[in-house]
Amino acid sequence: MLLTEILENLYQQKLTPEQALQKLNGFPYEDLDFAKVDHARELRRGTPEVVFGQGKTTRQILQISRSILKKGSNLLITRLSVEAYKDLKRQLPQGKYNELARSLTVIKKKPAAGRGPIAILTAGTSDIPVAEEAAVTCDFLGNDVIKIFDVGVAGLHRLLSHYDELQQARIIIAVAGLEGALPSVVAGLVKAPVIAVPTSVGYGASFHGLAALLAMLNSCPGGVAVVNIDNGFGAGYLASLINHLE
Amino acid sequence: MLLTEILENLYQQKLTPEQALQKLNGFPYEDLDFAKVDHARELRRGTPEVVFGQGKTTRQILQISRSILKKGSNLLITRLSVEAYKDLKRQLPQGKYNELARSLTVIKKKPAAGRGPIAILTAGTSDIPVAEEAAVTCDFLGNDVIKIFDVGVAGLHRLLSHYDELQQARIIIAVAGLEGALPSVVAGLVKAPVIAVPTSVGYGASFHGLAALLAMLNSCPGGVAVVNIDNGFGAGYLASLINHLE
Amino acid sequence: MLLTEILENLYQQKLTPEQALQKLNGFPYEDLDFAKVDHARELRRGTPEVVFGQGKTTRQILQISRSILKKGSNLLITRLSVEAYKDLKRQLPQGKYNELARSLTVIKKKPAAGRGPIAILTAGTSDIPVAEEAAVTCDFLGNDVIKIFDVGVAGLHRLLSHYDELQQARIIIAVAGLEGALPSVVAGLVKAPVIAVPTSVGYGASFHGLAALLAMLNSCPGGVAVVNIDNGFGAGYLASLINHLE
Amino acid sequence: MLLTEILENLYQQKLTPEQALQKLNGFPYEDLDFAKVDHARELRRGTPEVVFGQGKTTRQILQISRSILKKGSNLLITRLSVEAYKDLKRQLPQGKYNELARSLTVIKKKPAAGRGPIAILTAGTSDIPVAEEAAVTCDFLGNDVIKIFDVGVAGLHRLLSHYDELQQARIIIAVAGLEGALPSVVAGLVKAPVIAVPTSVGYGASFHGLAALLAMLNSCPGGVAVVNIDNGFGAGYLASLINHLE
Amino acid sequence: MLLTEILENLYQQKLTPEQALQKLNGFPYEDLDFAKVDHARELRRGTPEVVFGQGKTTRQILQISRSILKKGSNLLITRLSVEAYKDLKRQLPQGKYNELARSLTVIKKKPAAGRGPIAILTAGTSDIPVAEEAAVTCDFLGNDVIKIFDVGVAGLHRLLSHYDELQQARIIIAVAGLEGALPSVVAGLVKAPVIAVPTSVGYGASFHGLAALLAMLNSCPGGVAVVNIDNGFGAGYLASLINHLE
Amino acid sequence: MLLTEILENLYQQKLTPEQALQKLNGFPYEDLDFAKVDHARELRRGTPEVVFGQGKTTRQILQISRSILKKGSNLLITRLSVEAYKDLKRQLPQGKYNELARSLTVIKKKPAAGRGPIAILTAGTSDIPVAEEAAVTCDFLGNDVIKIFDVGVAGLHRLLSHYDELQQARIIIAVAGLEGALPSVVAGLVKAPVIAVPTSVGYGASFHGLAALLAMLNSCPGGVAVVNIDNGFGAGYLASLINHLE
Amino acid sequence: MLLTEILENLYQQKLTPEQALQKLNGFPYEDLDFAKVDHARELRRGTPEVVFGQGKTTRQILQISRSILKKGSNLLITRLSVEAYKDLKRQLPQGKYNELARSLTVIKKKPAAGRGPIAILTAGTSDIPVAEEAAVTCDFLGNDVIKIFDVGVAGLHRLLSHYDELQQARIIIAVAGLEGALPSVVAGLVKAPVIAVPTSVGYGASFHGLAALLAMLNSCPGGVAVVNIDNGFGAGYLASLINHLE
Amino acid sequence: MLLTEILENLYQQKLTPEQALQKLNGFPYEDLDFAKVDHARELRRGTPEVVFGQGKTTRQILQISRSILKKGSNLLITRLSVEAYKDLKRQLPQGKYNELARSLTVIKKKPAAGRGPIAILTAGTSDIPVAEEAAVTCDFLGNDVIKIFDVGVAGLHRLLSHYDELQQARIIIAVAGLEGALPSVVAGLVKAPVIAVPTSVGYGASFHGLAALLAMLNSCPGGVAVVNIDNGFGAGYLASLINHLE
Repeated sequence: MLLTEILENLYQQKLTPEQALQKLNGFPYEDLDFAKVDHARELRRGTPEVVFGQGKTTRQILQISRSILKKGSNLLITRLSVEAYKDLKRQLPQGKYNELARSLTVIKKKPAAGRGPIAILTAGTSDIPVAEEAAVTCDFLGNDVIKIFDVGVAGLHRLLSHYDELQQARIIIAVAGLEGALPSVVAGLVKAPVIAVPTSVGYGASFHGLAALLAMLNSCPGGVAVVNIDNGFGAGYLASLINHLE
Repeated sequence: MLLTEILENLYQQKLTPEQALQKLNGFPYEDLDFAKVDHARELRRGTPEVVFGQGKTTRQILQISRSILKKGSNLLITRLSVEAYKDLKRQLPQGKYNELARSLTVIKKKPAAGRGPIAILTAGTSDIPVAEEAAVTCDFLGNDVIKIFDVGVAGLHRLLSHYDELQQARIIIAVAGLEGALPSVVAGLVKAPVIAVPTSVGYGASFHGLAALLAMLNSCPGGVAVVNIDNGFGAGYLASLINHLE
Repeated sequence: MLLTEILENLYQQKLTPEQALQKLNGFPYEDLDFAKVDHARELRRGTPEVVFGQGKTTRQILQISRSILKKGSNLLITRLSVEAYKDLKRQLPQGKYNELARSLTVIKKKPAAGRGPIAILTAGTSDIPVAEEAAVTCDFLGNDVIKIFDVGVAGLHRLLSHYDELQQARIIIAVAGLEGALPSVVAGLVKAPVIAVPTSVGYGASFHGLAALLAMLNSCPGGVAVVNIDNGFGAGYLASLINHLE
Repeated sequence: MLLTEILENLYQQKLTPEQALQKLNGFPYEDLDFAKVDHARELRRGTPEVVFGQGKTTRQILQISRSILKKGSNLLITRLSVEAYKDLKRQLPQGKYNELARSLTVIKKKPAAGRGPIAILTAGTSDIPVAEEAAVTCDFLGNDVIKIFDVGVAGLHRLLSHYDELQQARIIIAVAGLEGALPSVVAGLVKAPVIAVPTSVGYGASFHGLAALLAMLNSCPGGVAVVNIDNGFGAGYLASLINHLE
Repeated sequence: MLLTEILENLYQQKLTPEQALQKLNGFPYEDLDFAKVDHARELRRGTPEVVFGQGKTTRQILQISRSILKKGSNLLITRLSVEAYKDLKRQLPQGKYNELARSLTVIKKKPAAGRGPIAILTAGTSDIPVAEEAAVTCDFLGNDVIKIFDVGVAGLHRLLSHYDELQQARIIIAVAGLEGALPSVVAGLVKAPVIAVPTSVGYGASFHGLAALLAMLNSCPGGVAVVNIDNGFGAGYLASLINHLE
Repeated sequence: MLLTEILENLYQQKLTPEQALQKLNGFPYEDLDFAKVDHARELRRGTPEVVFGQGKTTRQILQISRSILKKGSNLLITRLSVEAYKDLKRQLPQGKYNELARSLTVIKKKPAAGRGPIAILTAGTSDIPVAEEAAVTCDFLGNDVIKIFDVGVAGLHRLLSHYDELQQARIIIAVAGLEGALPSVVAGLVKAPVIAVPTSVGYGASFHGLAALLAMLNSCPGGVAVVNIDNGFGAGYLASLINHLE
Repeated sequence: MLLTEILENLYQQKLTPEQALQKLNGFPYEDLDFAKVDHARELRRGTPEVVFGQGKTTRQILQISRSILKKGSNLLITRLSVEAYKDLKRQLPQGKYNELARSLTVIKKKPAAGRGPIAILTAGTSDIPVAEEAAVTCDFLGNDVIKIFDVGVAGLHRLLSHYDELQQARIIIAVAGLEGALPSVVAGLVKAPVIAVPTSVGYGASFHGLAALLAMLNSCPGGVAVVNIDNGFGAGYLASLINHLE
Repeated sequence: MLLTEILENLYQQKLTPEQALQKLNGFPYEDLDFAKVDHARELRRGTPEVVFGQGKTTRQILQISRSILKKGSNLLITRLSVEAYKDLKRQLPQGKYNELARSLTVIKKKPAAGRGPIAILTAGTSDIPVAEEAAVTCDFLGNDVIKIFDVGVAGLHRLLSHYDELQQARIIIAVAGLEGALPSVVAGLVKAPVIAVPTSVGYGASFHGLAALLAMLNSCPGGVAVVNIDNGFGAGYLASLINHLE
């Protein structure tokens, strides 16, 4: 019995207030919310659910994907290995796979456009896969992306030569492993919020991205938001959320 | 000699290109930039520099504060202990001190208004000082603040009863110690970006906020930006930056 | 407007279903739930809320305590330092303070009795304050407590000489710092579930209780539940919950 | 020589008290206890020993299993990989293998029934293998299990829609990786004790389950018992122990 | 009833074997063992129990000390602060206090002599308090001690100039903070077992002795035994145990 | 030129004191010492050098082994994988390989006998490889070994049933993973020094042996020496050193 | 448009100062700097860029290498696996590959000579690959190298026998895993600056080089510079920089 | 008896070679080396020993200081608190105390001059005490110092405006807490070796300087040497060593 039915029945006095209360007990957390949230998600973000491919079987991924597509929604699968993609390929022929980003997308309806360009920077070339995941996500959610790769602090001039693009960007995603200094330097140069993505690029005392993560959390200039190590999707999603604020 | 003077002199041929080059060598990084950045900062953020009071002597704080006020700027001093405030009081009589937030403000001109309300949530009452620092910062930078305190996940209904305010907020700052679950739960409920602030509230295996920090970095729902432990100022600053995006 | 009022108004057709839906939107999470949870808590646990004294001002503690007592509930304040107690003493003259446990209790109505005795063990004498906090909590919630202190694994015979009491206990709380081996040894001897409480007793490589915590999480025999370092209250509360299961 | 024989011989004065003392020296720890504990274990838990398959050779597993089955006991092998199972299959044809849970069971006699249903929750789909291990263990030990999977805090409504089942459960096992917030949220909703199982699901700053583990140890609401990362068996065993308390 | 009494009664047929069994059930772990262990401890180590002063009240220390002295045993109190000693002084006038070692001793009977000298080395002067605790312990337990302080690896010649004493020592205790290299170097020079004691001397990346501890655990030459950070007593006790092996 | 030659030449006035000083400068550290240490090692330990096989190529191992055997010494290669052994087999036909211990030995002359038996205990069956490495090492160095496996604290009676053997052992090596409680329990029962070997057996919060390591370093009873995680060789070597003390 | 052109145009009044300012805005960070830095790098270090091979595809490495060689520069590729080298071999036939050091070099012009010899020490044989990387780097950058391997502190005489070479070295690189004591011992013996390279050699509590890293950071004697774990290249590069100081 | 006396006596045949050998046994490590090292230290570094004041009593500091001054050497005491200085003041009236650097110096003879200026940079004002310790050390050891404070990456222009001074510096010491990015940025700009000093400035996830330390160890550009957290003295000493290389 749906909430609206309960209310209707109460209005028509087919239920007493006591009976209605009993039915409502624990109810609104349930179907109403379920429907409401889902609907809202669809309306405001253009996608009902993003599929995190890692740790799922090809079959699980396929079932969830079909369920999403059946509702007419766009589809984004992240952390989809080349091997898994090969298995899925035939069943999802409409899917566009980005090997660097390990992501697959199906666009059925154009997402709402973000308000300005999102710049995605990397400190080195090894950080590019994480940046590409962020880029695919931003693009999937309707944002324009400016990619500026390999501009780490070891050669500051490389970064500074892109000063104009940095100024134009509405939001900046800065992806870096090793000492993770890029977001700090960028945040000191521009007015845009900077989303810092530590990567596991490095060895030894990088401790799989911990060094970069801690550096970013301690960023001296204000305006730096940190996400999890290697979380390109999270950075892209957060950037898009901000970029769609009215 | 200012950059504009150099250029003017060159134009008027009072300098040769060689002389100008010599003067410019290393220059533009200096005064021009210094001025430019300062100016830009002033224009877009309403304050030239925020004073981090901790670890500075009263005298150092006073000198920096006067230099800021002399330029006609607003002043924000964070992490200013009650003791330090008592010392400063007479010399900065116009300062408004918030004891919970350990912050002092002087407003000389009204800051540009943010575009929507920023909701600041805490999981418990012990998280309030960090939240207040965020609130003071938001307010100082021209944003409206909605405070919703003590709505941690131990009693979900307390949070859910503020559902409307959460929906209205343009940006949400969620402050939590212990298991740090509040930002995850909030991010699953609303469309606004959530800035997660772990606090050092707790004992034992909270490891001075590490538990909350890690939880927030691993937040399952998208749209969560993490800042350093107890960094209320950083959260407020980031929120304001986003809230002033045009 | 209360939920029952909304339903009543709807039943009497003073509201249309649409108007009711609007009023209900976000509502039931609020007062109804708030009341329900509180009430349930009261009914099944004998206390509406336990006050964690640490990090609260004497005034805050007093306000919350009075609010609890006014409802006719029993009162438990944990982590209440001797200094704080001295301040509270006159205003809460009916409070019984346990200095070792740093806890204050006011019993206004007898709590529901637990089904069997709870044995509380410590490895050493320095673990006793944590054990006492657990004991006060168990007692406050209506459980019989058997205290067996200083029975660490350095002298196994001390533990084994209490074999009968261990067998009789329905639930065992084992409190230990240093190498934290006590819960493992006890769990190998008895059928009762063992709640393991690591303490920060020790120095050097005990890392403030981390060594004991890790040991307990890796306990070889089954049936060991771990709580946070020094969390005597949590252990007592969990034990009581299990002991009141019908 | 058995203890009863020693006593009989002493009673019949075939041994002097001195001789008996000598024989008893170190003795009762030995065979008597060995037998007693074994017997007790059998009587109260329905299984003499659970075989932890990981790190054991197929041959070792087989020998232990046969020794257990020969005594007429039920058999549970945990952490048994598919490969190891394939090797064992023919020699243990009566074994029932659960691939998700990586567990094999042989039931020769019905275990004593637990007193109420145990609900097993997971935050995500990747947590299911750990939850299945807990489920197999609960089932093996005579408990009814309610499985509620994929109800993490990112979509609170999914959890709340199972409110009734949560209320009916006598004990709840909450399995979660990433930020590990599920047990905290559940413990705030129900009266049942909650056994929290952190999983190694996640990447980067999840540090192989450390983030979830710390979160659970710092759980704000009372009544949460924590076990080791990925320890589904331990959670099921603990739950069953509690569920069989008389 | 003592074990010998039970056996005697059984022998005299005042008890049946069944009655005896009942009385023995759980018994031998108890009083017999208690007495036996205590007695053995006394016989082989010359002290019934060492009092760890830290975290105990003056009164607790006094009670335990008197109980030990009453049995005619020697007394060692470790980690006894100067303040605590001042309180105890009058009540334990026979106590000899070593301020550097923070230890108090009362010798009532000469302990059994160890078989050879124990050399105690420190890397620096700040490690001396820990070394003194080891020295007091060794001396208290009947061992000759050779102290060689401030011979860290920064000036190898200082260590090498004591080569003869190192060769004569039966056991060597090497105490070091900072990089903790002393035990490794010493173990490469001599045949004696080396007991390595990391100290919390240092700052920054010494992490309160963790650096020295890890170094010692990874000692390349064989024959190095490690104890806890700052555990001078433990090192002395272990050395004495080895030195009294027959 | 040897030291004795320099002195002889000086005595015979073929060198002036100044020339001798020059030749001595830096000298004694060199060849003399090299020979002396080597010789001493041979005399007192029965083996010139133990080969750590891990991380060395088969060829490197072979060269070092031959050099050792050529001197007439016994040979011990530790951490020699089955694969590496297969490669070495033909070239070292006299080698005796212990697969569990991953060790190869060649005995050319009987080592000096240790003074008493060394007991080697394990908590579980998975700890046996580390224990076997210790056993091979003890045996290689001339010690009698008593193996007592699978006597972890989960079933105390299993340990206690070996009480006599524990009492007879001159030194005890206790090998344990998980919570690492075995050495603490054993040290509380016997007078022998206990060498504690943490193993990496476990998962999750065992953190590859860290939990066991910390537990052992915090061992409450005195007389526990700790070596590195999985360091069976180090434990055996240390035990033998102690066992050969005159 | 180059900076000099702008200035020239301004001088010739082809640009107004306003136009020049606009062109200069953000400019000098860009192309000028880009060129300048590159040029300086080439002039002072003899190589435009070192290629870090790890994590790059063969094709990426080849492209970068060709671009470097085309400019007439020398080429150094570090962390180039044997597999990757096999792929590259034919396309870079002039490359000289050092398998131990996993490095490839192409020398087209002789680098500027360093001022004195650089000694490279290792504690053990397993540290040699890291040392070889340092050696290849030093050699590539024009320095003479003295290799002194396997001189760890377990046998001090081995190190001391090389005292003369240590004294002659202008800079010393000390490579060590396990307890990482070598740099401390060396720094106490010589006047040269010591560059300490921790390696991941070891197991258990070496925590992949953390133990050695911490030891080196806490080195008691002054004059020790630390680089990242296994960073042979970094050590060689730093040594060469110092060795080329005028 | 001195080494020269032994040799003289041998030459004069007052000693036989056997007697000389006996006297030499263990000797040369001793006085000869002791004298030699001391002398060398004096010659090349201008100070026989630097006194680390922390953890020493005023009396110990005074005794060591007097012993150093008596030899005619210069004196440097580091980590000397204001309180300790007040106690020492009268007894060391010639001492010059730097309160920020917490260092006391006495210059009795001019130290050998370093070859070029050493630039000391800080990221923020709170890093100045560590930088001052480095500056005092550099100055004490005969080096010219250029101080450039508060040039952290949050405002890059501040650093770039000192480009000329950076270029002129022979060695750069970069002191930074928080994200510790300064050394990386500087190393990318100049040819001088950069000594990176992490400081404990910060809070939360700076973990007392760990974040900065890890960042510096992972510095992307080559040529960065890292010292311990807050180790200003170590940085100054290392810089001076390099600056005095011939």
